[in-house]
Amino acid sequence: MVRPGMRALTGRRGLLFGGDYNPEQWPEEVWREDAELMRAAGVNLVTVGVFSWARLEPEPGKHDFGWLDRVLDLMAGHDVAVDLAVPTASPPPWLGHRRPETLPVDEGGHRLWYGSRNQFCPSSGPYRERSQSITTALAERYADHPALAMWHVGNEYGEVCHCDVSAEAFRGWLRARYGDLATLNEAWGTTFWSQGYGDWAEVVPPRRAPYLINPTQRLDWWRFCSDELRAHFREQRDILRAHTPGIPVTTNFMGFFKRVDYWSWAADQDVISNDCYPEPGDPLTPARTALTHDLMRGLAGGRPWLLMEQATSAVNWRAHNLPKPPGQLRLESLQAVARGADGLCYFQWRASRFGAERFHAAMVPHAGPDTRLHAEVRAHGQELRGLAEVAGEPVPARVAMVFGWESWWALEDRGRPSDRLNAVDQLLDYYVPFFERGVSVDVVPPGADLSAYALVVVPNLFLLGDGDAAGLTAYVAGGGVLVVGPFSGVVDENSHVRTGRFPVPLREVLGASGEEWLPAPEGQPVRCRWSGGLDFEARTWTELLRADGAEVVAEFAEGDLAGRPAILRHRSGAGVAWYVGTMPEPAALASLAGRALADAGVRGVLPDLPAGVEAVRRGAVLFLLNHGATTVRVPIPEPGVDLLTGARAEGHVTLTPRAVAALRQEVPAA
Amino acid sequence: MVRPGMRALTGRRGLLFGGDYNPEQWPEEVWREDAELMRAAGVNLVTVGVFSWARLEPEPGKHDFGWLDRVLDLMAGHDVAVDLAVPTASPPPWLGHRRPETLPVDEGGHRLWYGSRNQFCPSSGPYRERSQSITTALAERYADHPALAMWHVGNEYGEVCHCDVSAEAFRGWLRARYGDLATLNEAWGTTFWSQGYGDWAEVVPPRRAPYLINPTQRLDWWRFCSDELRAHFREQRDILRAHTPGIPVTTNFMGFFKRVDYWSWAADQDVISNDCYPEPGDPLTPARTALTHDLMRGLAGGRPWLLMEQATSAVNWRAHNLPKPPGQLRLESLQAVARGADGLCYFQWRASRFGAERFHAAMVPHAGPDTRLHAEVRAHGQELRGLAEVAGEPVPARVAMVFGWESWWALEDRGRPSDRLNAVDQLLDYYVPFFERGVSVDVVPPGADLSAYALVVVPNLFLLGDGDAAGLTAYVAGGGVLVVGPFSGVVDENSHVRTGRFPVPLREVLGASGEEWLPAPEGQPVRCRWSGGLDFEARTWTELLRADGAEVVAEFAEGDLAGRPAILRHRSGAGVAWYVGTMPEPAALASLAGRALADAGVRGVLPDLPAGVEAVRRGAVLFLLNHGATTVRVPIPEPGVDLLTGARAEGHVTLTPRAVAALRQEVPAA
Amino acid sequence: MVRPGMRALTGRRGLLFGGDYNPEQWPEEVWREDAELMRAAGVNLVTVGVFSWARLEPEPGKHDFGWLDRVLDLMAGHDVAVDLAVPTASPPPWLGHRRPETLPVDEGGHRLWYGSRNQFCPSSGPYRERSQSITTALAERYADHPALAMWHVGNEYGEVCHCDVSAEAFRGWLRARYGDLATLNEAWGTTFWSQGYGDWAEVVPPRRAPYLINPTQRLDWWRFCSDELRAHFREQRDILRAHTPGIPVTTNFMGFFKRVDYWSWAADQDVISNDCYPEPGDPLTPARTALTHDLMRGLAGGRPWLLMEQATSAVNWRAHNLPKPPGQLRLESLQAVARGADGLCYFQWRASRFGAERFHAAMVPHAGPDTRLHAEVRAHGQELRGLAEVAGEPVPARVAMVFGWESWWALEDRGRPSDRLNAVDQLLDYYVPFFERGVSVDVVPPGADLSAYALVVVPNLFLLGDGDAAGLTAYVAGGGVLVVGPFSGVVDENSHVRTGRFPVPLREVLGASGEEWLPAPEGQPVRCRWSGGLDFEARTWTELLRADGAEVVAEFAEGDLAGRPAILRHRSGAGVAWYVGTMPEPAALASLAGRALADAGVRGVLPDLPAGVEAVRRGAVLFLLNHGATTVRVPIPEPGVDLLTGARAEGHVTLTPRAVAALRQEVPAA
Repeated sequence: MVRPGMRALTGRRGLLFGGDYNPEQWPEEVWREDAELMRAAGVNLVTVGVFSWARLEPEPGKHDFGWLDRVLDLMAGHDVAVDLAVPTASPPPWLGHRRPETLPVDEGGHRLWYGSRNQFCPSSGPYRERSQSITTALAERYADHPALAMWHVGNEYGEVCHCDVSAEAFRGWLRARYGDLATLNEAWGTTFWSQGYGDWAEVVPPRRAPYLINPTQRLDWWRFCSDELRAHFREQRDILRAHTPGIPVTTNFMGFFKRVDYWSWAADQDVISNDCYPEPGDPLTPARTALTHDLMRGLAGGRPWLLMEQATSAVNWRAHNLPKPPGQLRLESLQAVARGADGLCYFQWRASRFGAERFHAAMVPHAGPDTRLHAEVRAHGQELRGLAEVAGEPVPARVAMVFGWESWWALEDRGRPSDRLNAVDQLLDYYVPFFERGVSVDVVPPGADLSAYALVVVPNLFLLGDGDAAGLTAYVAGGGVLVVGPFSGVVDENSHVRTGRFPVPLREVLGASGEEWLPAPEGQPVRCRWSGGLDFEARTWTELLRADGAEVVAEFAEGDLAGRPAILRHRSGAGVAWYVGTMPEPAALASLAGRALADAGVRGVLPDLPAGVEAVRRGAVLFLLNHGATTVRVPIPEPGVDLLTGARAEGHVTLTPRAVAALRQEVPAA
Repeated sequence: MVRPGMRALTGRRGLLFGGDYNPEQWPEEVWREDAELMRAAGVNLVTVGVFSWARLEPEPGKHDFGWLDRVLDLMAGHDVAVDLAVPTASPPPWLGHRRPETLPVDEGGHRLWYGSRNQFCPSSGPYRERSQSITTALAERYADHPALAMWHVGNEYGEVCHCDVSAEAFRGWLRARYGDLATLNEAWGTTFWSQGYGDWAEVVPPRRAPYLINPTQRLDWWRFCSDELRAHFREQRDILRAHTPGIPVTTNFMGFFKRVDYWSWAADQDVISNDCYPEPGDPLTPARTALTHDLMRGLAGGRPWLLMEQATSAVNWRAHNLPKPPGQLRLESLQAVARGADGLCYFQWRASRFGAERFHAAMVPHAGPDTRLHAEVRAHGQELRGLAEVAGEPVPARVAMVFGWESWWALEDRGRPSDRLNAVDQLLDYYVPFFERGVSVDVVPPGADLSAYALVVVPNLFLLGDGDAAGLTAYVAGGGVLVVGPFSGVVDENSHVRTGRFPVPLREVLGASGEEWLPAPEGQPVRCRWSGGLDFEARTWTELLRADGAEVVAEFAEGDLAGRPAILRHRSGAGVAWYVGTMPEPAALASLAGRALADAGVRGVLPDLPAGVEAVRRGAVLFLLNHGATTVRVPIPEPGVDLLTGARAEGHVTLTPRAVAALRQEVPAA
Repeated sequence: MVRPGMRALTGRRGLLFGGDYNPEQWPEEVWREDAELMRAAGVNLVTVGVFSWARLEPEPGKHDFGWLDRVLDLMAGHDVAVDLAVPTASPPPWLGHRRPETLPVDEGGHRLWYGSRNQFCPSSGPYRERSQSITTALAERYADHPALAMWHVGNEYGEVCHCDVSAEAFRGWLRARYGDLATLNEAWGTTFWSQGYGDWAEVVPPRRAPYLINPTQRLDWWRFCSDELRAHFREQRDILRAHTPGIPVTTNFMGFFKRVDYWSWAADQDVISNDCYPEPGDPLTPARTALTHDLMRGLAGGRPWLLMEQATSAVNWRAHNLPKPPGQLRLESLQAVARGADGLCYFQWRASRFGAERFHAAMVPHAGPDTRLHAEVRAHGQELRGLAEVAGEPVPARVAMVFGWESWWALEDRGRPSDRLNAVDQLLDYYVPFFERGVSVDVVPPGADLSAYALVVVPNLFLLGDGDAAGLTAYVAGGGVLVVGPFSGVVDENSHVRTGRFPVPLREVLGASGEEWLPAPEGQPVRCRWSGGLDFEARTWTELLRADGAEVVAEFAEGDLAGRPAILRHRSGAGVAWYVGTMPEPAALASLAGRALADAGVRGVLPDLPAGVEAVRRGAVLFLLNHGATTVRVPIPEPGVDLLTGARAEGHVTLTPRAVAALRQEVPAA
């Protein structure tokens, strides 16, 4: 059966707008004001009950649903759809008190307590049972409620536990993966440091130890933790699907969140939803946020996704929480729409008076609705109606960037050549020049079908399986353009180093190979030179490479590596493969991106994009977003109508800081 | 019955001078040298036995008092009064060994061991019993000893324990506060994050948890911890009072020490005593120390207090311990006298040869009495006799600054807008300009009677109860001048945010209100402008404010807030109320202080005070202290006699670096 | 019986060359390639089995020696000697699983797990028993194997445990040291902070406590931990010696490793061996490494020692691991030869594919033998044959520097005047000028026989026993030149401060004394002045000193100490004693070294040594090593033949960066 997805939500409503709604924090007289304010602000979706377990089940097995009935009735009466939460993210105190073994244990052996949230061992039997019980009760009670539009399981899954129950579950997972101990010993390389296991009972999670932990043990632990949480998610999801086959089920992701391999979770979701809290003070924020949105679109298989949580202004969990200046809320929300979001929700509707997040910005601030902030929220909710036509529309991209959690986990362990070369940082470094040129990028997993792309970038895949490597090779053979960043292809699925000249599984397609990874002294850039003659700087990382057929595009220009290749380009089969053996400065990466785009015949959506302006085409609409601090004039090739204002633009549009245009072009681009 | 106080000590002796005396660390032949050296140095008070429990009670119930008898006899024979300690701060190893449950447990669940000091759970039954037993034994034995002049309970109270016994005590405290669980759930806001408690047994101290702890749970924990230690203090005090009604009882405070709410402890003390260890390298040290002394005077209700511990030179517990240059010991000691201290004591008399504090400076250093340092100590002890007349004299102040522990606790939790806005830092920032002008300030608690003050400054009261807010309003109505700093009046006693335009309980009196707290980017000062036209810089914090009747005295001059109020002044009733919605640079705070002083008609003790010179009037004596690095000439309006030298001064006094004058003016100032 | 030493290894083989060989990580088909590559590279010694316990004894008492038989046979067949390891450094998982009490407990009470290495409690009975069992089994099996050339016990001993078993062992050690509790109480100064022990059972290791731990308790803990590990080493050694009296036994040291007092361990070793991993990016590395090598020579009593582990290039355990540039491997290896090493080994032979150290450089890198790195290894192994004649030769030195672990431990505890004055840093500061002048230095322990030395330098001996102080005094009386650095002679063996003017036990010989240690403000150098008139800067530390007969060589020139002595020189008996009461800048220390060398009549091996060039004479060979970045011309007084090239040099040698000359001089220098 085909599962319902975003379309089930947006079909009648257009773009979704709303937020987390926690009415149990307020007296009921406030609820009616909430409903009226929601209507005025164009809210059409609220998430209810994420942290309501203790309220819904104040004692084990004793439920109090009356208040939730009234909330859902109220929402239904105001035509606000409800994303109803299964509240498993935060068990009530009674669970930890009665069953202390449900409380999580950290890698040092400390049990963590309630008083906060998320205090559960994902493998705990009693926790699993109580989760299913409350899920079943909710599913039974609200299956047919007219407000119910989506189920929301847990919240920001990411819990980990190192207790003995978790150890037993880990062993079960390992048995399933390896079958027997000999295979595990082989995979973990236990001949190193006398770690050979003679009995399954000896195998434990990575716990505090005198020195570096076995890296494959840690890699498998990351895998297990992701899978164990996923199993919990699936248990709830299956209960919900059984009761309400027509209602989509989701859980909210957290972008590049290391604990959970979202690639493996994506297919379990009916709707991909994400929580996104950009750092306001960072100049890389627009690109980083765009990259995160592109990841979500990738997880959704190119279909629309839902921005489940964002902040209207400052969050409260940083040391110093900068607010969003006026216009920023709208700019960031529309950036998500441009990149495939069909819904824009916030944490949370009304700012809490108490609890640990009472200083997190909300749609209705403490100061009330008659405020600058709420006015902005309301105006934005209203203007979204004008964008209804983009719901469901795709964001076409001819460039893909490959990113994988397993490689991330394997790379960023202790004991590697340098902790300055990191997976997400590398991805972002390579992403920025495409973002700045208005070239849309899909983020895809290792092993993805690449046939639709003209250019594929692998900023770093430290761990690269044989099949995935073969896929990259075949892609180039078939005419694709491939760019591979440093320290890729180093280890196999067991995190064993592939022996021989590196990158072992790609050296044929790259026409180049290396023999040493050479971290460079900190604070001392390495001068490099394009074969044309211009210099640039690299940093942190170099490699001892040679061309085995490839053209040397840039070489190191000083030190022991002077004259050795830094960047190589290889015509291979019908395609072209690039290898980058260092970390070039941003301008050099931009130049590299330009050359690779030329190889691939790909251009940005606009020929002359002013600095600071983001340009994305979604369906028939060209989004232009000014992240810069100055007013800019953006030339547009075709006239169009700005869906946000109704105004017609021709020749150019003028964008003040934080301004956005959503131009439905009269003559759609090819 | 009226309790004896400082006067019981100073009546016959004048100013007190001495220190901690730990003769059990030395062979008895050294004691006699000690007594002779004390006499030569003018020592008239020593604190004995603070860490002598294991020596006094080497086995449970078996006492060895002989050595202490001889020490007290020796002191009596040399006319040195004894502040006799109840040694509960550091139980003997036998207690932790025999009753491990008396050892404290940290918030991560680790039990802490003996081998250091302070290893006790304040709620532990066996610890409480053994404390009372040793206290009773000491009281019985020494009640009538002629050397006994004061009792000293424990030392620097501040211990905390998270064990199950502490949890039970916490629950008892909470039951007393809230009566029933429903009220606790309401106060703690447990509908947030599914924290509703269904059984008292579920309630625990804040322990290590996956994320932010409930802020009201933490606030109540701070309250409980302070109260629990206070209960221990009172148990000993009551035993001592029962045995020796005429002997004052104290425990030594630690200035702005966060763990313990000294406002609640102050009334329990017969003498307010304090330990003060200024950081030598910090240019703000003179002001910070003065502020601490003013706090002590406030705790003492304006009566004299005792500087129980200071260092003659370097301490040993910093990473790099700077010594005091010659003259600094005297300068700092006289600063305390100027601000109300009637006694100047040191930790400790003779530098230890062994133990963890053997590198802490003492009155007699390792090198012996024939040293520069001891000579300075002796000279200072002798010169104090000339100041006997100031004993008991008050330090008049027409300005009050309000500071409260509960607000401090509530503010400085995780999860707030910015951890750069802190309670004591704000207090000091506002204090400095008054210090620099020679304007004396009383530090008072929220809810204090303000009627005697011409100006009241509230640098920050994040937590502000309804009654305390009403008191501030009434003060202005009655003609007072009030200055309120940013982020005040935010939460109520339960740390719940007050909803509506802020500061909710003060916006009437301030004639102004706001809707957003807006932390400013770090390292980017915000330009502001006085209504007169001069610019200044603010930092870290801004607010979105509007005048509701108040005059805009300064506005923000750039960014999204340009043109919005930064500082407002409101004539209200017979008084004036100021609100400061940012953190102005020091010069701007100084200007603000000047304007508020003008509103209040208050001036410093001298019209033209050179930079670096502190001026305080105590009784009939004007103290002038040169903290600067250069010799200065200080104009004095009236001639006077310097009690330290006997010299007459007229027109001005000249002060070399670290010099002090104590002028009894011939014509007392109005 | 005379124990066999390095000569047993080098007699037939000349200098040793090789590394750790872990064939169990590889299929057997790789082994033969290994053996061939070893032969080609001149490898003549490999260390086998350091981490093979789990492989050798996969279940308790069940051994699998077959693979090791084959490895040893293979090595014997290729004339590669084997340093066979007793694998006690890393017990198999089955030990921790079956006997969790063998797992170590940290000072906070956390048990550490397997999954890494080194997870044992040194005092654990079961661990001790299993260690002896595997040692006995290995000794029995391989006693007569022709490949066996040395036994290697454990690895980098340094484990510590705070469990109750360790506590019992600690008490046993304390009973042996002190006899009775009264003596322990006296030694530990337990009258401080109420720590008097009434029962042995109360005494525990230093565990996590509320504040500073008793410093003598900590000092004794350091002593005990070193002794307890040593007892473990000796247990294995004695088993091995009983089985193979002719085979030397060693364990690998780690240079200035704080945990273990190598002076006390040295006599237990048949061969002193060391692991040395210089930090590549630090300009002080050449001197620091030279100092470490000199320490090893000192531990070996002037006899040759073995460089057991070094890296061919980058290690993997720093955050950012810089590689060695070409030539560096050879330069560092020959530096060890110059300073007395008769063997140069690496960790490890072949880079691991898996495990926590797979990114640690090896002799055969992942990229294989056809690499720049392996070529360098092979060339170096081959050229070492030309140096065979230096094996066994001494490195003559007329200067000694005194360094002691007990003083190091006592000094670097919390609660001291400054944590910026540290034992090894002081040693290095004083060592550098001698290194730069080509003056060889022996590192000797406190209490060493100094009669052979013309100059003895004590950079810091915070703890100085009476006998050791008397030895220094006698040395000067006998005509020696002594230089004593600041904060020396402060405490006795119990870490009790010696009272009186400091340095108490040396003030006679120094003709000077002081009364205050005065840490100086950070970032503010203190200007000093040589009596001649030139200024220099000191930092961090000053002292209030006076001359009691000594000549003031330099004085402080500013601040409260202006005009007071900074450096003093005292003709005493037939000798000269210097005292340095501050931390002079490097140029001033160099000047000081020059003056002391002139007093002692000692000169460097070459009159005009260019900057960056290290010069050491070993036997008849003069080693010149260029650590600088430029090519230099080094004048040589006598012609000689470079053993590395066979070329004759006269007048001078020219050294490119990282070049080395090993000149056997035709006319040996006097």
